[in-house]
Amino acid sequence: MNAETQPDRAFRLRVSYDGTGYVGFQRQPGQRTIQEVLEHAAWRLTGEHRRIGYAGRTDAGVHALGQVISLETAQNLTERTVLAGLNAHLPPEIVVWEATQVPLGFDPRRTALSRTYVYRIENRQWPTPFLRRYSWHVRERLDETAMQQAVAGLPGVRDLAALTQKSGVMLPSTSRRIDQVQVSRKGDLVSVTIEANAFLPHVVRNLVGTLVWIGRGRRSANEFETLLASRDRRQAGPAAPGHGLFLVRVRYPDDEEPAAKEKESAGVQNLLGED
Amino acid sequence: MNAETQPDRAFRLRVSYDGTGYVGFQRQPGQRTIQEVLEHAAWRLTGEHRRIGYAGRTDAGVHALGQVISLETAQNLTERTVLAGLNAHLPPEIVVWEATQVPLGFDPRRTALSRTYVYRIENRQWPTPFLRRYSWHVRERLDETAMQQAVAGLPGVRDLAALTQKSGVMLPSTSRRIDQVQVSRKGDLVSVTIEANAFLPHVVRNLVGTLVWIGRGRRSANEFETLLASRDRRQAGPAAPGHGLFLVRVRYPDDEEPAAKEKESAGVQNLLGED
Repeated sequence: MNAETQPDRAFRLRVSYDGTGYVGFQRQPGQRTIQEVLEHAAWRLTGEHRRIGYAGRTDAGVHALGQVISLETAQNLTERTVLAGLNAHLPPEIVVWEATQVPLGFDPRRTALSRTYVYRIENRQWPTPFLRRYSWHVRERLDETAMQQAVAGLPGVRDLAALTQKSGVMLPSTSRRIDQVQVSRKGDLVSVTIEANAFLPHVVRNLVGTLVWIGRGRRSANEFETLLASRDRRQAGPAAPGHGLFLVRVRYPDDEEPAAKEKESAGVQNLLGED
Repeated sequence: MNAETQPDRAFRLRVSYDGTGYVGFQRQPGQRTIQEVLEHAAWRLTGEHRRIGYAGRTDAGVHALGQVISLETAQNLTERTVLAGLNAHLPPEIVVWEATQVPLGFDPRRTALSRTYVYRIENRQWPTPFLRRYSWHVRERLDETAMQQAVAGLPGVRDLAALTQKSGVMLPSTSRRIDQVQVSRKGDLVSVTIEANAFLPHVVRNLVGTLVWIGRGRRSANEFETLLASRDRRQAGPAAPGHGLFLVRVRYPDDEEPAAKEKESAGVQNLLGED
């Protein structure tokens, strides 16, 4: 970061992006990342070179409906002008749809109460071209009841070592608080929704890969708890591909009523076929 | 077309495609068209160079959920092998999802009873990145009731000269039988559905452009009939962009019960946010 005037205001921004063609959210030298494009737009708007904060890293090809970032500035910007100004400098695959002024020093990662991810599986013989970037096509018929049964006991504080990419010894703790997990089917679209206080690398994709094993009858629903208890990554299924995954929502203490938020993102929910 | 063995069987195929990046369905020398890619896949499968028949031309960027094409061959192919074989040679943006053996000489254009198109408008302040290729983003709030009112009297045999690109004198007749027109809203997604025996160039896009004028209050619903009666293209609104338009269904005399068809394309209907 260059030396700049001290910022005197901060904004919390909610962002949707199509992760196709990006190596992920987080900056990596010489690579196309969502973070780099957002910081470039912020620089175009403010003339200041600053890093943005963010609530969650997303992997290559992973999408977001409600990623949250923070932006500080010394410019005389309002919620309205920061929203319009950023969108004017962003490519069409990245859209900021809400700006809220927050106290300086706001940290979108540490302040977050929970993150919700949705993973979408298109479960039909022939895929729909329009969903090819936004779902995982699985031809074999999935038993969504068995998948739901497998995760029914998951909420609570759980050790997710068996579902994370790194071995347990690499991380200070592999336990996370899982608030809800749901498997639902609407026509040929099977969705896995998971909300937790925080996530470990690849947890959702490894969970979905394991649930697809169960949905195809390669493992029974009962085996899921045994597998989790093993803390052994090799017991779980292969990671589901990134392009079916969406970071849907990040909750904060000052959020409005959930109902209001739901309404606001109605268009987005349409996309998920969840209404 | 090269000289080939006489074909001894024909198939009717239902095809979905993402029209992004194509100049349209119909073959044009040196251009990327859906027809050329389908004929190339058929050649790879059968070893025969043959033209395919089709139910409807679609313009640049226009999509299909249920385009219908015909394919004749002298090869010993079944419904099953033609379906799997074509998909094996098609890029992911074009998918054949139904194959039915039909009598030789089947003409998908002349046999069709009707075509249904759906036009989708994303009506919210900031667009959703995932809909950018599959809807038209209109920021100003649309009055869908006025739009519905405007077209309530449209079904019947109507002269569509005011809504077609070519002037009336260029076409033998500008009258078509309109079976249904509906304007509906679901959250921030406004859809215009129109079924007719046949269409004239750009009719749906010009109709939608005119309805958006009405939805924005630039014209009253009552003015629609006057405009149509004028037979003057200059009275109607500008054409809506191609990327919001989908050829959804082509009906044939031997189609199964509509209910069965609906069920079959449930995944596709999800996409349209119509269920």
